[in-house]
Amino acid sequence: MIDNLSKGPRNAISVKEAQQRILSQLHLGGNERIDLSEARGRYLAETILAPHPYPHFRRAGMDGFAIISQDTCGAQTDQPVWLEIVDEIPAGALPSISLESGLASRIMTGAKVPDEADAVVMFEMTEQIEQGGRTTIQIKREIEPGKNITPIGFEIKQDDLLIKEGTRISSGEISVLATFGIHQVLVYKKPVVAIFSTGSELLDIDEALQDGKIRNSNAYMLACQIRDAGGEVIILDAIPDDLQIAKARVTEAFELYDMVVTTGGVSVGDFDIMADLVQGEELTLLFNKVTMRPGSVTTAAVRGRKLLFALSGNPGACFVGCEMFVRPAIGVMQGKDHPFLKEITGILATDFNKINNFTRFVRGHLAYEEGQVLVYPASLDESSVMVTIKDSDCLIVIPPVSQAVPKGQKVQVLLLDGSGIL
Amino acid sequence: MIDNLSKGPRNAISVKEAQQRILSQLHLGGNERIDLSEARGRYLAETILAPHPYPHFRRAGMDGFAIISQDTCGAQTDQPVWLEIVDEIPAGALPSISLESGLASRIMTGAKVPDEADAVVMFEMTEQIEQGGRTTIQIKREIEPGKNITPIGFEIKQDDLLIKEGTRISSGEISVLATFGIHQVLVYKKPVVAIFSTGSELLDIDEALQDGKIRNSNAYMLACQIRDAGGEVIILDAIPDDLQIAKARVTEAFELYDMVVTTGGVSVGDFDIMADLVQGEELTLLFNKVTMRPGSVTTAAVRGRKLLFALSGNPGACFVGCEMFVRPAIGVMQGKDHPFLKEITGILATDFNKINNFTRFVRGHLAYEEGQVLVYPASLDESSVMVTIKDSDCLIVIPPVSQAVPKGQKVQVLLLDGSGIL
Repeated sequence: MIDNLSKGPRNAISVKEAQQRILSQLHLGGNERIDLSEARGRYLAETILAPHPYPHFRRAGMDGFAIISQDTCGAQTDQPVWLEIVDEIPAGALPSISLESGLASRIMTGAKVPDEADAVVMFEMTEQIEQGGRTTIQIKREIEPGKNITPIGFEIKQDDLLIKEGTRISSGEISVLATFGIHQVLVYKKPVVAIFSTGSELLDIDEALQDGKIRNSNAYMLACQIRDAGGEVIILDAIPDDLQIAKARVTEAFELYDMVVTTGGVSVGDFDIMADLVQGEELTLLFNKVTMRPGSVTTAAVRGRKLLFALSGNPGACFVGCEMFVRPAIGVMQGKDHPFLKEITGILATDFNKINNFTRFVRGHLAYEEGQVLVYPASLDESSVMVTIKDSDCLIVIPPVSQAVPKGQKVQVLLLDGSGIL
Repeated sequence: MIDNLSKGPRNAISVKEAQQRILSQLHLGGNERIDLSEARGRYLAETILAPHPYPHFRRAGMDGFAIISQDTCGAQTDQPVWLEIVDEIPAGALPSISLESGLASRIMTGAKVPDEADAVVMFEMTEQIEQGGRTTIQIKREIEPGKNITPIGFEIKQDDLLIKEGTRISSGEISVLATFGIHQVLVYKKPVVAIFSTGSELLDIDEALQDGKIRNSNAYMLACQIRDAGGEVIILDAIPDDLQIAKARVTEAFELYDMVVTTGGVSVGDFDIMADLVQGEELTLLFNKVTMRPGSVTTAAVRGRKLLFALSGNPGACFVGCEMFVRPAIGVMQGKDHPFLKEITGILATDFNKINNFTRFVRGHLAYEEGQVLVYPASLDESSVMVTIKDSDCLIVIPPVSQAVPKGQKVQVLLLDGSGIL
């Protein structure tokens, strides 16, 4: 039997301290220029300023007639003014005639307003009359200068900040970038993350069930979480409970990939090889105990400039460890300003009766009621529990408490992907 | 000049009515069986029940010793009981010896508890002593039956509902499916959506700027929105302002793809060909006016069993039209129970001063403060405005009002992708 004491005493540190130790090791990933049409979900590696004002020409805001507003001075129902239509300007075309007093151009929404015009009067406010081969319109009220014209730079001035480095590219960003003709963008490369499972109890997910064994679900769950965070994933074969093999496999993964994430083998049990591995010479241990539940045995180490996260094999603890540590690390490597889960204040919707000596991150779900954010803890939130992960869209933060936290109390809440829109 | 009256009068219908007309035309898409590792973000096309209980064996919840709890009856500090260690059970292994009274098995977290044992006592509560070639442990208190054993079916009983058809597959679902060895899943095929832009004013995004023209940003924005909704996208060449060409191109797209979405050309302007096209014989018009802003000219039609959405060319209106109508349509084709944007109640954080005769969907962003959901309307939310789409994570619903809506008022809010986690 292995002497568990050889794994050494563990100094538990706080989640914040653990996150800081990770941040201190991280560096920005490389970048690459890609087509905008492929950029959804990627993170900008450059700050982009407006190459021109937008709109870049004076744009008609309505279908109507471009006019010189002064021509309508004094116009009223019984004293209409008459203007002759001399041009037609579809969107995308340019005015073909210079306007002068007494003239107007038919113009479509989005088209460039003739330079001489300073207002567009909508169709509905005019009456069109054909007389002597000429088309004229009658206007029965004064039109103010600037009416229905979007001025140059109304939305964005030249050199205005368009999008900051580190921004995730979603539909709104794509709209802006396309508008300015930025058809290729510099983005951070997706960190490539190798996932290992450890433990002789693991069956692959397509193997038949065996007594005493469980299927390797964590590797697939982690793959999804890491992709959500913006990483690419390589699932490697599970590591048997053999320290030398584990060392060789992890070393090889460090050569090939940007980050290594393992699940299982971090406790103090007889076969918890990851707990031993991170104490070896090849790695510098960042921490191997965090004052949190689930996931107190979450471990991180560094080799060269690359991080190893050794997460618990318990599904709940593995999930939380990934959200608290791996996700932010992947975010930082892609320039994310706020890489950690967003924290809000919510109102506990039911009593929470468990006593904690560590801060507890309780799976839960958000409900919005009459302008308030209520949070419901999952009925089962032990670290070993898998089934409630899928119904959770937040983690409720319960600090160390010696008595139950009552319904109605304000609590900190960490939002997971899909919060609120599940 | 084209007579705009030929486009006919438009009967404006409510958003709810428009959504109902779309729902009435929709059908579930086809399905396909794919590997679980490829299933992230897809929608289940089958309801899945638990093929076995979970856990499927009595599992040790701690590293410790499996014992027969009755052996500890009467144990106390000055009257310890002694048990002989006869087996060691790592996770994944099976007990090799049947326990009898007076015996115990060293056992690791996650391992199968011997059938004869009914409790696991953690290492820390025992003292281990080697005597006469035998290893014994001393226990100084009574251990209750069931202690540190997770019973069979604790999380899930056989045939319990695991995941309902129509559920989006995220990390939690993947964890459950992998746990039960469901390594392939039946999912709905992604609807393939063709996107057309119309309008002679459009430059492609890699063309140099030209006076009076704008770049085709909507096609790329829509592509991102449709992918977010679970669709696949084909961006087709923009359609020039020619009704016959438009007809031919749209007809061809209906042959090849599951849905057609166009942007631009739906107003009553001289060159608004989509407005004409949906009135032709090839299509059955569902609606061409909705009592909403932006996007009142949003149009939908059907051909055979396929839908055409003709959205406004104004970026803000195009964005909202896609979220309100196209996204739910793609959701329904994939079995989504609640295909519409999630609606919550928020508290208006600033006065909203615009007067509306139609319901207004104002771009905005959520802020969580002390358990409340505040919503801030974007400063620019005209239908033509593009720049505020990127900073919005919700649409604030302002009903027809004849006066300003004051700060502090409760309002309905539709959550967009990324709500809260931006």
